[in-house]
Amino acid sequence: MKNFPLTLRSLFERSQTLFPKKEVVSRTSTGIHRYTYADFGRRAKQLSSSLQALGVNPGDRIATFAWNHHFHLEAYFAIPCMEAVLHTVNIRLPAEHIAYILNHAEDRFLFVDETLLPIIEKIQDQLTTIEGYILMTDKKEMPPTSLHPVYLYENMIEGGDPHYTYASDINESAPAGICYTSATTGNPKGVVYSHRGIYLHSLSIGLSDTLGLSERDTVLPIVPMFHVNAWGLPFASVWFGSKQVLPGPSPTPDILLRLIADEKVTIAAGVPTVWTAALKVQELLQVDLSSLRAVVCGGSAAPRSLIESYEQRLKVPFYHAYGMTETCPLVTVSRLKSYQEDASYDEQYDARATQGLLVPGLDMKIVGPRGEVAWDGKEMGEILLRGPWVATEYYKDARTQESFQDGWFYSGDIAVIDPEGFVKLVDRAKDLVKSGGEWISSLDLENALMAHPNVFEACVIGVPHPKWAERPLAFVVLKDTALQTDDDKEDLFNFLTNKFTKWWIPDDVVFLQEIPKSSVGKFMKRELREQYQTYFTGD
Amino acid sequence: MKNFPLTLRSLFERSQTLFPKKEVVSRTSTGIHRYTYADFGRRAKQLSSSLQALGVNPGDRIATFAWNHHFHLEAYFAIPCMEAVLHTVNIRLPAEHIAYILNHAEDRFLFVDETLLPIIEKIQDQLTTIEGYILMTDKKEMPPTSLHPVYLYENMIEGGDPHYTYASDINESAPAGICYTSATTGNPKGVVYSHRGIYLHSLSIGLSDTLGLSERDTVLPIVPMFHVNAWGLPFASVWFGSKQVLPGPSPTPDILLRLIADEKVTIAAGVPTVWTAALKVQELLQVDLSSLRAVVCGGSAAPRSLIESYEQRLKVPFYHAYGMTETCPLVTVSRLKSYQEDASYDEQYDARATQGLLVPGLDMKIVGPRGEVAWDGKEMGEILLRGPWVATEYYKDARTQESFQDGWFYSGDIAVIDPEGFVKLVDRAKDLVKSGGEWISSLDLENALMAHPNVFEACVIGVPHPKWAERPLAFVVLKDTALQTDDDKEDLFNFLTNKFTKWWIPDDVVFLQEIPKSSVGKFMKRELREQYQTYFTGD
Repeated sequence: MKNFPLTLRSLFERSQTLFPKKEVVSRTSTGIHRYTYADFGRRAKQLSSSLQALGVNPGDRIATFAWNHHFHLEAYFAIPCMEAVLHTVNIRLPAEHIAYILNHAEDRFLFVDETLLPIIEKIQDQLTTIEGYILMTDKKEMPPTSLHPVYLYENMIEGGDPHYTYASDINESAPAGICYTSATTGNPKGVVYSHRGIYLHSLSIGLSDTLGLSERDTVLPIVPMFHVNAWGLPFASVWFGSKQVLPGPSPTPDILLRLIADEKVTIAAGVPTVWTAALKVQELLQVDLSSLRAVVCGGSAAPRSLIESYEQRLKVPFYHAYGMTETCPLVTVSRLKSYQEDASYDEQYDARATQGLLVPGLDMKIVGPRGEVAWDGKEMGEILLRGPWVATEYYKDARTQESFQDGWFYSGDIAVIDPEGFVKLVDRAKDLVKSGGEWISSLDLENALMAHPNVFEACVIGVPHPKWAERPLAFVVLKDTALQTDDDKEDLFNFLTNKFTKWWIPDDVVFLQEIPKSSVGKFMKRELREQYQTYFTGD
Repeated sequence: MKNFPLTLRSLFERSQTLFPKKEVVSRTSTGIHRYTYADFGRRAKQLSSSLQALGVNPGDRIATFAWNHHFHLEAYFAIPCMEAVLHTVNIRLPAEHIAYILNHAEDRFLFVDETLLPIIEKIQDQLTTIEGYILMTDKKEMPPTSLHPVYLYENMIEGGDPHYTYASDINESAPAGICYTSATTGNPKGVVYSHRGIYLHSLSIGLSDTLGLSERDTVLPIVPMFHVNAWGLPFASVWFGSKQVLPGPSPTPDILLRLIADEKVTIAAGVPTVWTAALKVQELLQVDLSSLRAVVCGGSAAPRSLIESYEQRLKVPFYHAYGMTETCPLVTVSRLKSYQEDASYDEQYDARATQGLLVPGLDMKIVGPRGEVAWDGKEMGEILLRGPWVATEYYKDARTQESFQDGWFYSGDIAVIDPEGFVKLVDRAKDLVKSGGEWISSLDLENALMAHPNVFEACVIGVPHPKWAERPLAFVVLKDTALQTDDDKEDLFNFLTNKFTKWWIPDDVVFLQEIPKSSVGKFMKRELREQYQTYFTGD
């Protein structure tokens, strides 16, 4: 039986035949731009045609360095539908990582947002494979730039053939996109998305029980299009004919809230910090959010209080989701089963604040030191995943061996799972304390310590120990750092003793003036581990 | 990039891990049976294990001859998950066709519903490949039967291993099921469903914009499980954790309505005659239908009045859908686009009464005598389909050549398509009148004639013509057959002249006492075509 290939052409064609009148709203540096899927489709074909004229061949990597706007949406389809590979580059990476990944992917052309020109100009001398730059702007005259050779986006469109056709028989396993994820140490790692993977992931977010994306929706992807394909929303929206609202360069909470109100957005997706900031601004702005049927939140864990604020105060359903670059990204969505709606308020929100239930199509195992964990909400294990939109390797990278084994992707996320199947993240694998063959969650201890009224911040690491392999060591910054005494330490030990079994309690507490942090505000645990590695062994 | 296989194991496993508490309600010949997906899963594994003990190997065809109940649901997964092929046999076929397809598929074992024993007993001597019969009954003692060798279903379950495991690495292109469709002439034709095809079709009916099947649903498949996998509902329900209500042997409208009310069914699916009958019975019974979020109707075209009755009188949304055995079956669903809800009542119901919009994933062409038709709602063409759940051949059948060409399935359905993409069936290809290179819809003429107050029934066929290749000839049964005169004929011509262009008007009207009909009440046009083939040529 011959298999009909699962490719992005199917998504694109349906927007052209069934939804040519539906709208794409795009905030660019020069204002709000509106057009239809018919316009989008014609321009995508023109762009493919012009890329072909530039010599782009199937399999070539073509990079984008851009915000969320209609230019980027055109590239999202123009590049993979002509069988080239869409490489979305994270504009927030350090310059040396941007150069690394453009070179590592061997990109031939780079689309650059006009607002982001300076970043690329600074590194252009380090780029070894780029043959040309295409400036994403609606300008008809080339702005001053040191990039060379450089093409104006609108000239590419004008010069292209609107009747360019996409092949229907391309290999579904062929790469359609590539996205790099930052590693704890070393260079970013590339994840390749096949046509088939994106196709199936797009179907998965149209399911009633996940995000239920629909023609009736007006979709606002706040999550950047340079980050895991904006969680796949632009692809699925084109397929299902949803109106899209693309929020453009540096969208602030007030810009986003006004877009929601003005365009009657029904579903918007972003990370917890976006939703936290939007909540505060909404208290002042009080825009009309009644069109929203859901906000989607992922990227990192949302606190229960944030979910409750949206649902109870703003009356907006909040879908807490979990995924990562390696998983395209959707893995779990935290929506209750129908029979759980009889549970108490607290039980419901406790479940909703977890990462949720595995979506149809993926396989998951949670594996601890003694094998697969019990579904008791207590036993910890690492999340292992496999499925049609889960990566099976890093692109040309020896680190594949660490993360992909026996057909499973080792996520590095440590979780528990409750009897109903709700997954709850408890730590990162590298931050776990492995004591005498048992696992201790550094995150649980940190959260407990930070709940103490005198504690400003707290960090827990595993430190080598002669008897137990590792033991937890806590670092605490008190709110009033002048006052720390041994009594404070005793007080903290007593505080923890009420909450954890004995062997979880850190062997010591070190008071610091400040916990070392990275540029994005995360604890630099690696630094602490290096500095304190002989704390218990005395070597 | 390695592809993770798309197989029914994924569907099955999710019901076991996430929805073990959800319920399957099954009406059997001995009453209402209830159990959970945990019970279902254990028994499916036991059944696979016992089939393996009987010598069933991957690729073997195993037939079922049964109504919709939990036994059948167990076979739906037990057979394909062990890599054998589920062959669902239509219990309503003539005996010689049942024997033909069991022999043609080379089935090794046959599951027989106890209520259907006599049908199989009568043909057992003609069955050349069946090695044993498994009696689907909850009885512990074998009822009297001439079948041999014969096994009791519950003994198979009891003797099986509940820890039997299904492989995760089976080939997604391998056959999972096979279903035969009756042909206009000759023997039924077999359509093979791959694991991949059923998997993707299941995703498609979970999409918000198609049927939106969900964990929150209680699903009543009235459409038989021996007919295109009950439109795929049992597969998708298991995957998404929907409660299922299986209506058992010979369900009558009052049984179905009471099941809907008692089990709080949210979505039920059946053919137009079922919904027409249920409408009448509901007028008497007045059961509570408030749980229904939708009825799904397909199999043949539903009249607009039926759709309106459900929505306006019963307040139940009505999803008109289109598909066939060769397409797994879903092809189109008639739901409005969001912006069409501003249209007038008539415009909305005119669109809703069409077959609707192509679902995501399929490709369609509508091809008339001059190539692809305009999207004007007027130009007629044959529906051509391709896609992940569209067949590419008939199983070991030379008739493949007629229906599958250049990667497209020629459906034999003649349709028009309107500017918004709504497909409307106008005839079957074999019933079209092809006059001077133009197509005339026999169905349109018949519907027009039957709207005449004196006409009881009418049938139109194409008859060979020396100048125009074919011309339409009408057969009419008047309500009062004693009175037919030439005046009646003139009256009918005048009646049609107001409705059609001149060259559509039949060249003659033949009055009959009765139009010859098949056992299921369809006009025997083939018989009329044979009898009247020289009507215009006079040979």
